[in-house]
Parts: sequence; C-alpha cells; structure tokens
Amino acid sequence: MRVGVVGGGQLGRMLGLAGIPLGCSFTFLDPSERAGARAVGRLLVGAYDDDERLAELAATSDVVTYEFENVPADAARRIDASVPVFPPPRALELTQDRATEKQLFEKCGMDVAPYTSATGTDQLAAAVDQIGLPCVVKTRREGYDGKGQVVVRSTADLATIGGDLIERDLLVEAWVDLRRELSIVAVRTTGGDVTTYPLVENLHHEGILRVSRAPAPETESLRPRAERAVRALMDELGHVGVLTVELFETRDGRLLGNEMAPRVHNSGHWTIEGAETSQFENHIRAITRLPLGYTVARGHSAMVNLIGEVPEPAHALRIDGAHLHLYDKEPRPGRKVGHVTVRRDSPAEVEEALSAMRGMPGTYLEGSGTTPL
Amino acid sequence: MRVGVVGGGQLGRMLGLAGIPLGCSFTFLDPSERAGARAVGRLLVGAYDDDERLAELAATSDVVTYEFENVPADAARRIDASVPVFPPPRALELTQDRATEKQLFEKCGMDVAPYTSATGTDQLAAAVDQIGLPCVVKTRREGYDGKGQVVVRSTADLATIGGDLIERDLLVEAWVDLRRELSIVAVRTTGGDVTTYPLVENLHHEGILRVSRAPAPETESLRPRAERAVRALMDELGHVGVLTVELFETRDGRLLGNEMAPRVHNSGHWTIEGAETSQFENHIRAITRLPLGYTVARGHSAMVNLIGEVPEPAHALRIDGAHLHLYDKEPRPGRKVGHVTVRRDSPAEVEEALSAMRGMPGTYLEGSGTTPL
Repeated sequence: MRVGVVGGGQLGRMLGLAGIPLGCSFTFLDPSERAGARAVGRLLVGAYDDDERLAELAATSDVVTYEFENVPADAARRIDASVPVFPPPRALELTQDRATEKQLFEKCGMDVAPYTSATGTDQLAAAVDQIGLPCVVKTRREGYDGKGQVVVRSTADLATIGGDLIERDLLVEAWVDLRRELSIVAVRTTGGDVTTYPLVENLHHEGILRVSRAPAPETESLRPRAERAVRALMDELGHVGVLTVELFETRDGRLLGNEMAPRVHNSGHWTIEGAETSQFENHIRAITRLPLGYTVARGHSAMVNLIGEVPEPAHALRIDGAHLHLYDKEPRPGRKVGHVTVRRDSPAEVEEALSAMRGMPGTYLEGSGTTPL
Repeated sequence: MRVGVVGGGQLGRMLGLAGIPLGCSFTFLDPSERAGARAVGRLLVGAYDDDERLAELAATSDVVTYEFENVPADAARRIDASVPVFPPPRALELTQDRATEKQLFEKCGMDVAPYTSATGTDQLAAAVDQIGLPCVVKTRREGYDGKGQVVVRSTADLATIGGDLIERDLLVEAWVDLRRELSIVAVRTTGGDVTTYPLVENLHHEGILRVSRAPAPETESLRPRAERAVRALMDELGHVGVLTVELFETRDGRLLGNEMAPRVHNSGHWTIEGAETSQFENHIRAITRLPLGYTVARGHSAMVNLIGEVPEPAHALRIDGAHLHLYDKEPRPGRKVGHVTVRRDSPAEVEEALSAMRGMPGTYLEGSGTTPL
C-alpha cells in the first residue's frame, strides 16, 4: 500500500522504517530536500500547504497521514476528498486549538486545570485576573516544544509578554502543583478497536522533552482513568491511527488532561524496542486497515532525546541494552537530532544505564521529577 | 557512514532497515531494477561481477558488505584495495568451497560427516564407494536452498545424476542419522570481540528453510560446543560481521558442522523481534566499527518463511505476537517472499501461534523435526 506522509522529519522516517516490512511504500512532502525521511521513501519538496504538491501526494498515495498536527485542516479535507486522510481531518482540526482541546477533555470526563480564552491585552489582563497567579499563557494554536507559551508569576510579567504572543488568540491556564508529567499513547482502527500503551513519565528541560521512562512507576491507580479518557476521546473524534495525550499528575493525586496530539509522539519512541509492537507500526497498521499489534511493554525502558548535538555513536552503544536512533538532521541548538532507548529487565538496570549516559553530549538527565514549563 | 551492499534482496533490505537508525546510508548493487532493497537506499543496477558497477559501489561507500556468499572473491579483493570489504575476502573465499569449509571445521575442532571430493563420473563412483550408501552429492560451489545437491540411495541413483552436477567439482558426504538441524549466528568485530546468538532449530521442506524456533529447545549441552567452534572459526578466518554455521545434531548426540555462510542468515531473522539486538543491526555495528549489542533472546520465537505466495497480511497480523516482513518480491514457486515471526513469553504460546498459522498460504509447518535434504 502506498502511504503519503505530510512531513519528512524523524516521525516520518520512523513510520517508514516500521511500514516497509508490512509492504508499504512511502512518499513524504517536506519543505527541505534534506528531510531525513528521504532514506525510506520518495520525497516531494514543497510547503505543507502547497496545493499542487498536496495534490501530487494524494495522487500517488492510497492513504495519507501526517507527522505533526499543524497541517491546515482545509488542506487535509481537500486530500480526503480523493484518498482517505488518517487521522481524519476532524481530529486534526479539534486538536489544533487548545481551547477546543480542553472542551473535548471535559466532555470526555477528564479533569483539566482551570482555563479561559483571551484575545488582546485587555482580555488577557482580565483572564489572568480570573485564573489567578501564577498562570501559564499559551497561544491557542501552533505551539510546540515550549514555543508559544510563557509563565506569568506577577502582573509585572504580563507587561513583558512579547508581540508575537499578544497578537494571537491565547489561552490562560492555572498553574498546576505538579508531581510529574505523564503521557499515554493509544491507537484506534477504522473499525473502532482501541489499544493503549502503558503510561509514560516524562522529564522536560527548557520546554523540550528530555527523558521518558516506561512503563511509568506508580501508575496502577492512574492507568484505568487515563485509558478510559483516551478511549472516550478517540471515539468522540472518530480517530484512526495513534493519538497521544499529555497528562499532569498533581501532588494531590489528580490526573489532568494537558494537551493531545493526533499522531505518533516523542514520548512513544521507547515502544520501538520496549513494546511488543511500536507506536509507528501500530499507526501504519491502523491507517492501512490491518489488525493492531500487542502494546504490552517488554521489560523497562527509558528514552533519552539527543538535543542539538550528536554524541559519538559508540558512546551510546557501549551501554548495556542501548539502542541508537539518529535522524540525519543538521545539529542546531534545541533541535532533536536523535534518541537513545535503553531497554532492560528491571527499573534498576534502566537507571544504571542512564547513569552511564551522564555527560553524553546532547542529553539532559538531571532531576528525577518533571520540570514544568 | 556510507555502506555499500552487493545484492539488493531481502537481506540487503533488512540490513538497510537496521542501519538507517544508526546513521548509515546505503547503496545496493543488484541485477534487478525492482530489487526490494531500493526502498531503503540507492540502487545500482548491474551484475554482481560488473567491474564498472563494483568500482562505482566502492567509490560511493565507506565500507562494502554483501548479502550472499557467491560474490567472486577476486571482485571483493579489488574493492578491498580501495575501501574495506567486511566480511574480509579471505572469509568469503574459504566459505565458497564446501571442501575447504569442511577442512576449516575440522581444523577448528568441529566434527563433520565423512566426506570426500570428486570430479567426473569415475571419481564420483569411487567416492560413493568410499563413503557408502546412502550419501549426499553436492557441488563444491554455489549451491543454496537445496539447489546443486542430490541424495544417492543406490548405485542406480548415481546414473540419474544430471549433467549440471556431473560437470562440476563435487563433494560426497555420508548420510547422517539426523535428529535435527540447528544453526548458530555469531558476530565478530574488527577488534576480535565475538558474540553469539542462541542456537536455532530449523525445519526444512523441499530443501528450503520453512520454520526456525529460537532458542532451540534442549541445547544446554550443545551450546558451549557450538559457541567454541564458531569462535575458533571466526578467529581463524579473521572474520568481521555476522557468520552463520549450520549444524547437524545426530540421534546419538553428536554435533556436526554442515555448512557456513559469511553473512546474515534466514535462520537469524527471528532476532529482529526475538533478540535484544538483531543480526542485521549487529552486522552493521561490526562492519562500521561500533560496539556490538546484546544477543540475548527476549522470550521465545518462531520464524515462518513465506514461500511462493504472500498471504493476506491481516491473516498473519491477527495472530497474537505476530510480526510480518514482506520483501517486495514477485511471488514465484519456491521463492522466499517474506516471513512471519511470532514472539511470545513461552514455547507453548509460540506453538499456539504457529497452530493459528496452519493453512496460511506460503507456509509449511508440518512435522516437528527436521526434514534432511
């Protein structure tokens, strides 16, 4: 089956690596002629909203998917008129706006931090007043990796918010007394079958995911709640493929829906070695109408992002149980250029492997909890 | 690192899938412009002994390897003059001739079935007389998947041996009272580090491997012997990369060296899901001078070849713990077009999964032992 992917970065690349053994061939649309996914398929060079290129992608594909959620929903609908787009354009649209996202979470029985929308300086001041300090101000659309959000600790902070934010539709969220950030990756077929991976614990630094531990420890009581919520969400969206929900666990034991992404996710990379079937393979299975594979964890894993720098491959590979994934991207500060997954039989062995990674260029392992934005 | 591969079939394809995450890029030389490895690299179309194409492969690679052992050793030596060829040409040469192979087995302390060489009708009759009936007559070079060999049960059988065999250098081997065929996949680095995978039990039909079970049951006492032998062999050859040795276990408990291949092997495909690091990744690690990964088995696996027919993917994927690998090859009788690996936590669950595969097009699962040639 011919799979078209909007975006040719590392997610596209790993979708290709997972889909080729299933007999799929891939075409990627990406603005860069150096896009890393070109190693596993044909590359169309063009903007994500270039109608001509999108039409070409549709014409040479049996199904189209995407590796990020900022594909224009209109463009997705135009493609969907000729070949199926999965996840469906409706799921794309509803997850592109943090306000509709929060409403969906609530509709599906999930708790969320208090929030309100605001446009312009006056509404923002009123919203911050309503939510209280500290709070987080985010753009409703197109934020990722900590971009497009700022923490407001005092009314003085409000005045320093830049023009790039203030001119956009915003969401003001209450500050959460966070124990840690968790996430859950789930996948749904066209027939409505849903399966979920174990909860993952995520450590951020400077707004970027650094380490995911899976299965997350101490989540026995949380897992049923998270699974119930993500199933309800997927059914509500009529979702097909992988959906990822980021969750906040508060110090008083509540589980809050934070954001969701209608796609394979960085916090699911550990599944390549650490689960029976990877998130990438299950996404491909779902969108090509194949039965889903087991999502059970095999032992314990930690995924460490390589940010801005590529270490010596031997440094990573010398570590027991380590697996290296490079994305063929030019290193730049803050840019994800690869990841290392360590898979072992016990959490203690995983921590030992992480210790051996300390000081490795591109990694950030400090702190045991989650650094909230 | 740029890896050149002579041959662009399924082994090249799986080498590419394993090497891309490590940051390698691939060029394949293959006579067919439809070669399945083209999904994961650049394809040079040409004969395996086309000097011009081989020079082009060498000029655009940092290291060259091959996916089958019938690359002319002279051609390998010519490439090796400009970029390293791994496994080294000497290993290639010594494993291309079944007579030198047997001598090597003996030199490295491994038992072999009684054998002798023969050229022409008269020598063949004398050789069969010496070895006794029944026996197996094989070409010394270029046999695979049961091609180029015949079982001789009576002197009358001798007269029926075709001209294609009789004109070539032959090896006559005593018939072995076989309990089963086993194989061992091992890998060696440029620095001489060796690691081995667990022994595998192989079931053949019509001269073609059908099912591999790994780790092979009841091999506790055999494994040290097999490992010792394969280490000695690799050191003797100065091997770099994967080497596979096919072994016969006789009914009286002896372990005989049968054949070896200086490459990744069909009986090692289970390692993609069933071992911590696959044979393909470890081959790439070895030839690109990276540290080797763990070869320990994760649970229990069975690999089932798909021969001549591709089943409905959903048929295979509906089975618990099943993983599908298609090679993008046109189905033809006797042709390997894919494989399915089932990985589970116990041998009983593996057998259950195999039962669910019964009757699936392309598979042959009957018989619990090994069908010798």
